[in-house]
Amino acid sequence: MKKFLLRCINCGREYAPDEVEYTCPVCGDRMGTLEVIYDLELLKGAVKREDFHPFSLRGIWQFEPLLPVSEGGWRPPLLVGNTPLYDSARLAKRYGLNKVYVKDDGRNPTASFKDRASAIAVVKAMEKGYGTIFCASTGNAASSLAGLSAASGLNCYIFVPASAPEAKLTQLQVYGANVVPIDGSYDQAFDISMIIGFEENWYCRNSAINPYLLEGKKTGALELAVQLGWELPDFLFVSVGDGTVLSSFYKGFMDLKGIGLIDKIPTIVGVQAEGADAIIRAYEKGKPFEPDDIQASSVADSISVGKPRDFLKACTYTEKNNGLFVRVSDEEILDSIIELARETGVFAEPAGATAFAGFKNLYHKGFFSQSTSVAIIITGNGLKDLKTPLKVLEPLKKIPAEPDKVREAIKRGC
Amino acid sequence: MKKFLLRCINCGREYAPDEVEYTCPVCGDRMGTLEVIYDLELLKGAVKREDFHPFSLRGIWQFEPLLPVSEGGWRPPLLVGNTPLYDSARLAKRYGLNKVYVKDDGRNPTASFKDRASAIAVVKAMEKGYGTIFCASTGNAASSLAGLSAASGLNCYIFVPASAPEAKLTQLQVYGANVVPIDGSYDQAFDISMIIGFEENWYCRNSAINPYLLEGKKTGALELAVQLGWELPDFLFVSVGDGTVLSSFYKGFMDLKGIGLIDKIPTIVGVQAEGADAIIRAYEKGKPFEPDDIQASSVADSISVGKPRDFLKACTYTEKNNGLFVRVSDEEILDSIIELARETGVFAEPAGATAFAGFKNLYHKGFFSQSTSVAIIITGNGLKDLKTPLKVLEPLKKIPAEPDKVREAIKRGC
Repeated sequence: MKKFLLRCINCGREYAPDEVEYTCPVCGDRMGTLEVIYDLELLKGAVKREDFHPFSLRGIWQFEPLLPVSEGGWRPPLLVGNTPLYDSARLAKRYGLNKVYVKDDGRNPTASFKDRASAIAVVKAMEKGYGTIFCASTGNAASSLAGLSAASGLNCYIFVPASAPEAKLTQLQVYGANVVPIDGSYDQAFDISMIIGFEENWYCRNSAINPYLLEGKKTGALELAVQLGWELPDFLFVSVGDGTVLSSFYKGFMDLKGIGLIDKIPTIVGVQAEGADAIIRAYEKGKPFEPDDIQASSVADSISVGKPRDFLKACTYTEKNNGLFVRVSDEEILDSIIELARETGVFAEPAGATAFAGFKNLYHKGFFSQSTSVAIIITGNGLKDLKTPLKVLEPLKKIPAEPDKVREAIKRGC
Repeated sequence: MKKFLLRCINCGREYAPDEVEYTCPVCGDRMGTLEVIYDLELLKGAVKREDFHPFSLRGIWQFEPLLPVSEGGWRPPLLVGNTPLYDSARLAKRYGLNKVYVKDDGRNPTASFKDRASAIAVVKAMEKGYGTIFCASTGNAASSLAGLSAASGLNCYIFVPASAPEAKLTQLQVYGANVVPIDGSYDQAFDISMIIGFEENWYCRNSAINPYLLEGKKTGALELAVQLGWELPDFLFVSVGDGTVLSSFYKGFMDLKGIGLIDKIPTIVGVQAEGADAIIRAYEKGKPFEPDDIQASSVADSISVGKPRDFLKACTYTEKNNGLFVRVSDEEILDSIIELARETGVFAEPAGATAFAGFKNLYHKGFFSQSTSVAIIITGNGLKDLKTPLKVLEPLKKIPAEPDKVREAIKRGC
């Protein structure tokens, strides 16, 4: 295995990978999330642009030299990553920009970006000799872990609030996960998962607790760079809930810059829903960044997070790289689902379309010029939530099964 | 454009592509479906195995030399095809076979195999100068056409029975399709679509009417051959509703054999639901094959077809190639959804899992040996139908939000 260290984002203490399993023992779970730090000087020269391809049969594992996993080790038998990047001429024209790229990560095995993290999680579980893995989640992390565990033959426990939508729970059960429906809130499910999971010595796939998840997610940034022929856009838009996806794009680009494969990092724009803006609040108050928990509410359930678990890394990386944040309303998110689908053919779940809403928000504020290029990351498939778009669609009206009536209805616009 | 002819599957009459648009004028829409016939001698030598790749940034368009489209012409800006093929060691071990391959076509842009056909449909519409395209469907063909039309900037009309599930209609509306909800049956919607669509001079994407759709679908067979390094399996399983997907695998392999890229065609097994076995009934009655319409009923809605539109081609190709058919019960289909997801991580919609049910059915009849290799085509993503698997899953029981209660519940198996 290549050498790496784990460094606390809060106090800077460094640990060998076998010294700590999850977070900094001094700073604790909330503040002491760990970064995976490689010897970038050693990687410089050893890793070349030509080693990577816009598409790879290996998916994210083509980036193995930049991941904290044993070389040539066991890999889960599902193709993770390798998702398409579209150069949308229609959006570029509509907004008068040079380039608008849309990366559809809803085409991962369980239809969300989270598969990149779950893939690393199951590999680390296997490397470390765990037979069971757990997480608390009602959403994409849960279905992703359930799917990857099934493919890997790992036992998995998913702690969920019992009030989670039946359809989401169905997906977990189909994959054979042990679903633990807690009669309480998501936060209660999370806390109980941490107690029981550690008692039972199961491997933990909770956001921001496990330092390796971010490394899996960072393959989104690496793949984007390769697919763009290493010519990165001026701006990159990504939706933000817990903060880990945002952090992962910074981390991916910082690693690439550290080993000299890219020169500059795009301006990354973290987009939050107005009603779930805990990370932006913490960021706006300035350093030292402190949690600013809220009661979250948004149509974009995957990012409707009141107590973000990765706020510190997200804020620290954003500050270090002069990144931006923007808030969007539920209305903007809903409109963005429709516009994105109709202009590009990519149907995103609300949290996925939130990145596009952030782009449009900055466009209307006059952020861009004709020479600007942007990339928008779509983190989940619209099939995951077919109810939310109904809020902005006109109800359909039945037409009698007679050609004349149908002709009339079509003339009226149905 | 490369040269090809259109030949009636019923009477054998041949037409130049500009002589007829859809079906044989002599034999009519039901019997007179047309085959696209290339000059295989001309293609022999001109097309080589090395021209194709297991993964391609071009998706299905890498097979352009074997498709009835203008070379280098306009293509829709969505990545169609290029779906993963898994070599499932777990299934091979479980069933004592040499190889069990699973091709996950639920990873197409709108999450079904039908995108392969819709992609060709929008290209032909553009080539022929149509601005509007239509189909009658409540399922994957509809969402696929809506998505591909949106990406392509084509206007589209989808005729559906108004009783179709709201979630399916939502997807169409999100993509901006003109949805025409007919207060009647699917057959009524189909008939009215044919009247209005032709009156309005819109391009028709109705199954088996448009001869080019099958050519798009045949890329499934071509991709499989390339991904297997041209070593085809002994058996290939595919679910059958209208019959076009089955026909398309035969057509793909027949074309490959005709130009000398493969030597033999696998034994293709068409799998129908017991309650929707109209094609098997027609086949069992023998030649001349005649439609045997029924009232269809199955949990696998995508193949619950009582009046199959491509029965003649499906029967003719099966007979010519010594193919097989098998019926499976709804129970077998439901069990197969669960087993497939838990063994491979691939969550299939009921019609997708039907192919796997067919495989298991023949396994239990003793069809295979240790040296047998099989491929199973998964035609749609499980996220398209989250309700059906509930029929065989135990309802979840809430657990109070107390660690002790959760511990107990986990010990009891939740």
